[in-house]
Amino acid sequence: MRQVYLDHIAATPLDPLALAAMLPFLRDKFGNPQSLHSVGQDALGALEEARSRVAGLIGADASEVYFTSGGSEANNFALKGMAMARRDKGTHIVLSAVEHQSILQAAKSLERFGFCTTLVPVDKHGVVDPEEVKKAVRKETALVSVILASSEVGTIEPLAEIGRVCRAAGVPLHTDAVAAVGNMPVDVRELGVDALSLAADQFYGPKGSGALYLRKGVRILPLIDGGIQEGGRRAGTENVAGIVGMGKAAEIAREKLAERQERMRALRDRLIERLPRAVDRAYPTGHPERRLPHHASFCVEFIEGEGMLLHLDMKGIAVSSGSACTSRALKASHVLLAMGIDHALAQGSLVFSLIDSTTAEDIDYLLDVLPPVVDRLRTMSPLYTQFLEGNKK
Amino acid sequence: MRQVYLDHIAATPLDPLALAAMLPFLRDKFGNPQSLHSVGQDALGALEEARSRVAGLIGADASEVYFTSGGSEANNFALKGMAMARRDKGTHIVLSAVEHQSILQAAKSLERFGFCTTLVPVDKHGVVDPEEVKKAVRKETALVSVILASSEVGTIEPLAEIGRVCRAAGVPLHTDAVAAVGNMPVDVRELGVDALSLAADQFYGPKGSGALYLRKGVRILPLIDGGIQEGGRRAGTENVAGIVGMGKAAEIAREKLAERQERMRALRDRLIERLPRAVDRAYPTGHPERRLPHHASFCVEFIEGEGMLLHLDMKGIAVSSGSACTSRALKASHVLLAMGIDHALAQGSLVFSLIDSTTAEDIDYLLDVLPPVVDRLRTMSPLYTQFLEGNKK
Repeated sequence: MRQVYLDHIAATPLDPLALAAMLPFLRDKFGNPQSLHSVGQDALGALEEARSRVAGLIGADASEVYFTSGGSEANNFALKGMAMARRDKGTHIVLSAVEHQSILQAAKSLERFGFCTTLVPVDKHGVVDPEEVKKAVRKETALVSVILASSEVGTIEPLAEIGRVCRAAGVPLHTDAVAAVGNMPVDVRELGVDALSLAADQFYGPKGSGALYLRKGVRILPLIDGGIQEGGRRAGTENVAGIVGMGKAAEIAREKLAERQERMRALRDRLIERLPRAVDRAYPTGHPERRLPHHASFCVEFIEGEGMLLHLDMKGIAVSSGSACTSRALKASHVLLAMGIDHALAQGSLVFSLIDSTTAEDIDYLLDVLPPVVDRLRTMSPLYTQFLEGNKK
Repeated sequence: MRQVYLDHIAATPLDPLALAAMLPFLRDKFGNPQSLHSVGQDALGALEEARSRVAGLIGADASEVYFTSGGSEANNFALKGMAMARRDKGTHIVLSAVEHQSILQAAKSLERFGFCTTLVPVDKHGVVDPEEVKKAVRKETALVSVILASSEVGTIEPLAEIGRVCRAAGVPLHTDAVAAVGNMPVDVRELGVDALSLAADQFYGPKGSGALYLRKGVRILPLIDGGIQEGGRRAGTENVAGIVGMGKAAEIAREKLAERQERMRALRDRLIERLPRAVDRAYPTGHPERRLPHHASFCVEFIEGEGMLLHLDMKGIAVSSGSACTSRALKASHVLLAMGIDHALAQGSLVFSLIDSTTAEDIDYLLDVLPPVVDRLRTMSPLYTQFLEGNKK
């Protein structure tokens, strides 16, 4: 059976060149980068080379890159660390309504320490209006955090404009760029952000490796206290192999970005254009143009995303119905609800996210397989039966 | 030149069998364990197998093991998460004076939220007296944390007795067992601990993988909020390959433990016995018997540990003068100071920690190389010159 993997947002395969770069550090170069002897120094050199490569992908200085165990840690580190470092200035946080759970829940846990949060609404395409951010920011706002691009609906937010709003207000801005980095151009200076989270497993690097960009001079308290690693800001023996793999993947992503984007866009547009023609009552979600190049998302009426997902899996097609971090919760996505999509329709969410090896034939195979799956599932839906009855009358 | 690696406490080489177990997850089995499709399910199965293996090494149930990015994260998670979960009961923490920095600094950062800490003293061998723990515990104590074995001086603490004290007082007990797990028998039920931190890179697993054991029913708040991973207690896409490598290393450690201990002890004792005879004014540190099987530590008078370390490195010998997490701080170790060793002598700290491939010849090579290094360095020490002058009089 044909195997078609369209779940980039859950995980990408590891680039074989990134693996090749990692292997020496999983074999004889096993030193701890903090060791003063030469076995350690070999590892330290590799770490700093990786830091430069990651910095290069986002237009940062190497000294502004802090390694973490992934995107969720980077998001927690930024939100809690920056908020706590500015607690004397105020305890108000501004987020968009379409943030990842690692941002929303981190803000929730800050409530224990007296913080409160304002959620900025989005329009029907999931776009945050910078004017709404401006309205939400107060004198006592410690931090603004707005996602750069949504893994659920693909929408790219107007971060540069939001950056201008925050600079004018003198409030630091963090962005969760996990879904974006490596897949679209990301430049921290152009965006004007003070902090940015990224994860290697979104650009063909290894799982368990991420980073937080922190503009020079921005204050933060550690999430993981205790060591001299990462300039005293993140303790713990570094995952050298993982970091080296992330560095190599960042270098490759930078080189391939233009070509990758162009290829992805063509395949994505093929899918966005044809799927609603192949499947009755399937509606694209997110912004029609300002979206991640590898991302196509839909809501299919009278159906549950999980059911489609499992049936597609039986046909060799791997997709998701939203964030892997909430996959088993089986709740309607807060992102779709914030966009004004009703609860029943939001249940029919399907996210197709392409990887480098995706072909037009893969898309066509999906477009062949999906319609009968939808038809079969709909025959089991009482809502669909009601709808058909209603139409007959 | 002979290469002799005696810095187990900084990092162990990765067991080739652990690497072999990891490789499929760095190649085609790249799914996200939270994905509902079969690519994800393959990864989930491997994750749960690894959880059982890690649990098996410490006598826990698999459901009590939470994966982290290493020992420092596990320590921060335990200390902050358990303390915050019990904040309504009280804001007092009891630690030993010889904890790792990731415990001491985590407690320090809890002071921001109104917590205060009592440090329990140790004797000249670095041993915590359970009676002292009993004296330190108050009605408002939220948590006790005592290290199981010190990576700096090798001393094994009487955790089972401390566990009885804590149970009698109704206070949860955490232990930092990073240096111990895989190197000596560790059974969470026998120790009577409520939580225990471990790290794979201390038993021939990969860097960037650790775990927190948490006894069923113990309350904790997440350090990394936001996902359904690890039962909602630790968000973030799992480092599948790293976890699988840790699982395999745990399985091997369990099988090899008795043999490994016996071999290590013989080599360690050879070093502890002979080094003070080969080097004038070199004093073993830590407990003479109750110590890690792979660990020999000394203070060498009239000399700086870092100088010895760099000179030994030039002879192909990798050692450390304390924790890698503070290696560049070049301060006297708080552990040695807590044991009553004076500041000047504490500067001469040397830690030799053996790995599986260490041989008697390696030890003998070290014993050949070290004395002339010490002699040369001492000729540059004003304190030593003073001492010699004093002796002449």
